[in-house]
Amino acid sequence: MQDFNKSGDTSLWYTEYHTPNSGITLKVKETLLRVKSPFQELIILDTYEYGRMMLLDGLVMLTERDEFIYHEMITHIPMHILKNAKNILIIGGGDCGTLREISRYKGIESIKMVEIDKEVIDASKKFFPQLTKGLHKNSQIIVGDGIDYVKKTKSKFDLIIIDSTDPIGPAEGLFTDAFYNNCKNILTENGILALQAESPYFHSESIGIFSKRLKKIFGNIYPYLAHIPTYPSGMWQFLLCSKKPLDVDSIETKISSHFLSKLHYYNHDLHKAVFKLPTFVKRIYE
Amino acid sequence: MQDFNKSGDTSLWYTEYHTPNSGITLKVKETLLRVKSPFQELIILDTYEYGRMMLLDGLVMLTERDEFIYHEMITHIPMHILKNAKNILIIGGGDCGTLREISRYKGIESIKMVEIDKEVIDASKKFFPQLTKGLHKNSQIIVGDGIDYVKKTKSKFDLIIIDSTDPIGPAEGLFTDAFYNNCKNILTENGILALQAESPYFHSESIGIFSKRLKKIFGNIYPYLAHIPTYPSGMWQFLLCSKKPLDVDSIETKISSHFLSKLHYYNHDLHKAVFKLPTFVKRIYE
Repeated sequence: MQDFNKSGDTSLWYTEYHTPNSGITLKVKETLLRVKSPFQELIILDTYEYGRMMLLDGLVMLTERDEFIYHEMITHIPMHILKNAKNILIIGGGDCGTLREISRYKGIESIKMVEIDKEVIDASKKFFPQLTKGLHKNSQIIVGDGIDYVKKTKSKFDLIIIDSTDPIGPAEGLFTDAFYNNCKNILTENGILALQAESPYFHSESIGIFSKRLKKIFGNIYPYLAHIPTYPSGMWQFLLCSKKPLDVDSIETKISSHFLSKLHYYNHDLHKAVFKLPTFVKRIYE
Repeated sequence: MQDFNKSGDTSLWYTEYHTPNSGITLKVKETLLRVKSPFQELIILDTYEYGRMMLLDGLVMLTERDEFIYHEMITHIPMHILKNAKNILIIGGGDCGTLREISRYKGIESIKMVEIDKEVIDASKKFFPQLTKGLHKNSQIIVGDGIDYVKKTKSKFDLIIIDSTDPIGPAEGLFTDAFYNNCKNILTENGILALQAESPYFHSESIGIFSKRLKKIFGNIYPYLAHIPTYPSGMWQFLLCSKKPLDVDSIETKISSHFLSKLHYYNHDLHKAVFKLPTFVKRIYE
């Protein structure tokens, strides 16, 4: 008979392997949800360090404690460059964090979020109410396939945010030229497409190839960075794509004056700074 | 009889716990060194992801793959602000990475490195030759106590870099007001003291207290950030302290023209950007 608990340590740990040889490990209080949706495995854990955490197919999507960084940085950077965006499309983003950040702006005519997996939206409503409350009155959540949506819609958007998982599993089709060309077609002339592009520390080669494809399609790309502790390497790449060249330093500061003090990461000084990349990251784009 | 290796997986993992509830885990090829010096336990592991890695009392000091970030950022930021630093003192820094970066500059009259633990220097020479080769002809490695050194020396320094472990164990005395006051005394009027100050994500409270103490002693402090994947949270705080106010954006770019292309993190655009802090970090200093 084995006596596993002789030491009295009954702690439970979740390890996400960021590469086959490295990972992050977190002490867990309990599992709150573990379901297989038609698209992916969805797990919600309650962790000691980061609070509640959502995993999709074993990858950390967000945690209560650090989700603000990703969500602020994927929205407020393009919104401040656009200055006066009226119509916004979010592809994916089922946790609603990106939608919550966009909802802070005045003068928005429509925000459409197209998420394929209803289970993610429902789980977020239940376990992450801080992400799903107080959404914009002009926002619309569409449960459906973003790939189809961008192919068929007749609407035009000032900002399209691709808030998806990595290019494996249900999000695979979000990384094809066909998809990006459809996005380009429904982007206004001065519009921006914003997306996340993994860790330049671990994936410099694939980011290099990916960004060249985007540049070919859109004409202009602008990479920027944020520190996200629970994402691989803690250094996270975002990209803006546009048909016309952007002056990323030229921003409208007034549009956030009524909510800036409520943010925890984004600010106007930081805005310009995040486009200044460390040398090894700059070299990816040369 | 237990059959541990039935799966064929004989992999060895090292986990550093950054807090009691979270950590980083790395697959290890082998242990290269494990010694107890008179001051601390020194371990060198060969990891798959980050190459060779030095641990002091169980904390990651550096890895082959990402040491460039810490060492470039603790040296080139103050050196470019100083424009023409002649006499430099490094307290700690036994791995010699900081000394290697300072050695890139022309016109330096003296670099003194005071490291208490000879075992660290010897291990670095053996296992990290890329850190200890080609050091400046005017550099001098002193095996001794930095606390004593700053108390007794009659020299003055344009730049003092505290390249130490955290405030537990042998480095404890490097975090006292008495030590910082002695540093202040041996700093030239326009001099800078540079140091690392842990992760603002995990240690905002202690950084707040620490930086207030430094501000009281020196008069001026300037925090900046770098992404270091193997350090807790991946977001690392550095501080510059000075008796006279600094214009951190005013730099002399010529001083690095002969080596800038050899660096992997620091560049002149990035220099100004790293002082622009995310809001939750700015609030630490308000």
